[in-house]
Amino acid sequence: MSLVVMKFGGTSVADLNCMRNAARRVKAEIDAGNRAVVAVSAMAGVTNKLIGYVSELSDLHGGCEADSIISSGEQISSGLLALALHEIDVPARSWLAWQVPIETDGAHGKARIKNIDPSNLLTCLDGGEVPIVAGFQGIDPRGRLTTLGRGGSDTSAVALAAALKADQCDIYTDVDGVYTSDPRIVTRAQKLEKVTYEEMLEMASLGARVLQTRSVELAMNQAVRLQVRSSFEDSAGTFVVDEDEIVEQQVVSGITYSRDEAKITLVGVHDRPGAAAAVFGPLANANINVDMIVQSTASDGNSTDITFTVLKTDFEGALAVIKAFGDDLTFDDILTDQDVVKVSVIGVGMRSYAGVAQKMFETLAEKGINIQVISTSEIKISVLIAEEYTELALRALHAAYQLDAP
Amino acid sequence: MSLVVMKFGGTSVADLNCMRNAARRVKAEIDAGNRAVVAVSAMAGVTNKLIGYVSELSDLHGGCEADSIISSGEQISSGLLALALHEIDVPARSWLAWQVPIETDGAHGKARIKNIDPSNLLTCLDGGEVPIVAGFQGIDPRGRLTTLGRGGSDTSAVALAAALKADQCDIYTDVDGVYTSDPRIVTRAQKLEKVTYEEMLEMASLGARVLQTRSVELAMNQAVRLQVRSSFEDSAGTFVVDEDEIVEQQVVSGITYSRDEAKITLVGVHDRPGAAAAVFGPLANANINVDMIVQSTASDGNSTDITFTVLKTDFEGALAVIKAFGDDLTFDDILTDQDVVKVSVIGVGMRSYAGVAQKMFETLAEKGINIQVISTSEIKISVLIAEEYTELALRALHAAYQLDAP
Repeated sequence: MSLVVMKFGGTSVADLNCMRNAARRVKAEIDAGNRAVVAVSAMAGVTNKLIGYVSELSDLHGGCEADSIISSGEQISSGLLALALHEIDVPARSWLAWQVPIETDGAHGKARIKNIDPSNLLTCLDGGEVPIVAGFQGIDPRGRLTTLGRGGSDTSAVALAAALKADQCDIYTDVDGVYTSDPRIVTRAQKLEKVTYEEMLEMASLGARVLQTRSVELAMNQAVRLQVRSSFEDSAGTFVVDEDEIVEQQVVSGITYSRDEAKITLVGVHDRPGAAAAVFGPLANANINVDMIVQSTASDGNSTDITFTVLKTDFEGALAVIKAFGDDLTFDDILTDQDVVKVSVIGVGMRSYAGVAQKMFETLAEKGINIQVISTSEIKISVLIAEEYTELALRALHAAYQLDAP
Repeated sequence: MSLVVMKFGGTSVADLNCMRNAARRVKAEIDAGNRAVVAVSAMAGVTNKLIGYVSELSDLHGGCEADSIISSGEQISSGLLALALHEIDVPARSWLAWQVPIETDGAHGKARIKNIDPSNLLTCLDGGEVPIVAGFQGIDPRGRLTTLGRGGSDTSAVALAAALKADQCDIYTDVDGVYTSDPRIVTRAQKLEKVTYEEMLEMASLGARVLQTRSVELAMNQAVRLQVRSSFEDSAGTFVVDEDEIVEQQVVSGITYSRDEAKITLVGVHDRPGAAAAVFGPLANANINVDMIVQSTASDGNSTDITFTVLKTDFEGALAVIKAFGDDLTFDDILTDQDVVKVSVIGVGMRSYAGVAQKMFETLAEKGINIQVISTSEIKISVLIAEEYTELALRALHAAYQLDAP
């Protein structure tokens, strides 16, 4: 008998028929002789509607009141899923974060789970009931409700799996797994049978919005075996596992892209020791994350161009910070470009194979695509290119790394 | 400095502009030097929508899961009202039932408040914050959410006023007070300046849906001074007070009506000792409340007709119970009528004045309205008449008891 945590996302509980479908999934797990603990998101659209209300009344996102309001979406869906299970004679009860309890820090809107006491849920399981836990929510040390940030129900599910020492954590969603690239663009994209935590982390943070990044981190740290699978199809999904579990590792597992970034170039920055710190310090203080950075020194050696990217949502804020620079940092001009896309090639295999980056640059060059910025990590190469080349670049790279379906 | 509990109903927080209006009301109370604790209903329509979801998945109303789902409406509105107060620089925070806590019994869907510990709310007040308490909800001894039944936020407000020893409990709603009759029918109906608890109780239970009956009982027992007033107009509303406070008591304070009842007549019941018990026992066991009853014995003395009313929502259930009668009780026929209305004349003054009933019967007779059933209490006379005479009867009685506005 295995203990499985099953997480249903917003599209998997979008309406009462979807709820019934999710309930049948849970029943199937029970009928197969397993024990199930369920984590559930709000019905699709509900959270956005509640955020809409909050935004109209308040500039301050992530406050106590916002979290109390927004977390009600999962309160509703957890109760409804319990009722859908009762309807098919499966004993079940909903658990709100404060009832479990799921303890977080007090960072409203992006709280981190500190502790889950599994005893109530285990008692519930022992009593023959399926616990349906409201995802996305927690309770802070002052006893106020918190939320875990967009996609936080994934993290709820993984944290529950870790606390309960579950054998597996299945993330039910509207896609049937993780693909080598976005199938809407790359029609020959293939579903991955397995992907490593590290690759999934890069994919999650680089625009493949299947899982919340933090949930993958947590799964990796706590060795929670994850599966991403479809609520609506019976086929196996993609397992997110430790590198050891993958016997024949591809060099490259996936090609992702993100249109979320904007490029800013400071032209003719007077070059002196600490110039970069003078740029990026104030941005960090303003809580603006800088992603890609390139610095090129002019031939005279006295000035430098600094190019970097920030999230489009931070773009105006970043410009305001730059314009507030005093005499500490002088430069000739600011150039900006929001019509850019970051394309990334990901694979743990590139640790042991040379030439992966070279193939990327050659492939893009062959298609006449100019690379504006490059950044790399141990298992990833990202390039910033003009947005209009997104599809062309993805398809060319997908073919070049031999990921195309036969 | 007074402590005032302010309760805003669903139409008073129907949308964000209504929320802002309610927030201004609270600010005005603070600006006047008072301390305010707020109780709030769900935004109009939200509770019904949630009940709709529940009903589609479950026959069982009033279960644990239903309460967890349905109470989320007040969770949302309490947070939003707190934000609307922040918007106009009034410190405020929402309190959910489990945070206060508001302890109830475990009768889901119609829970009764057992205890409210005021200390958290008093600390909040002392800290200069306005507590915004989610109405309608409580927490049972097992730590599960409960709801107090339709209109339960009124009871939340009164219970809070009692626990906090508040000087007054103002019920803000979409009408500006309690009227001598329904102003949509009786255009000459007048707003009452004051009404006694007993009269208000009868009005509430007889169809004037201004306050939940239980909230009036609680206010009477705990001597909470209630005011029913408009959220949208500044004029004083109607005070619900002890009889002693009303100097010049009218004989009759109001004329109400209810279309919620249906009439059932059992014709030719074989008369024997215990016949009535044989009818009403099984109905009581089936949790069906019987309101008006009349029994008339036939001239032969061997059989009797028993007429009674039940809520229309219980009508089918009552017929099923009757048809299941065995040999214990035999009768010739069942007659039913759902096109009936109960019209009631209410006033504590009728304790000391004779002839109030007589005037009612004469007035109806003059208009040619046949009385089908009569029931009386110390401060109320109710008659069942054909529904088509509703408006005629109300206007005639309103004039006869000299309640018409000049």
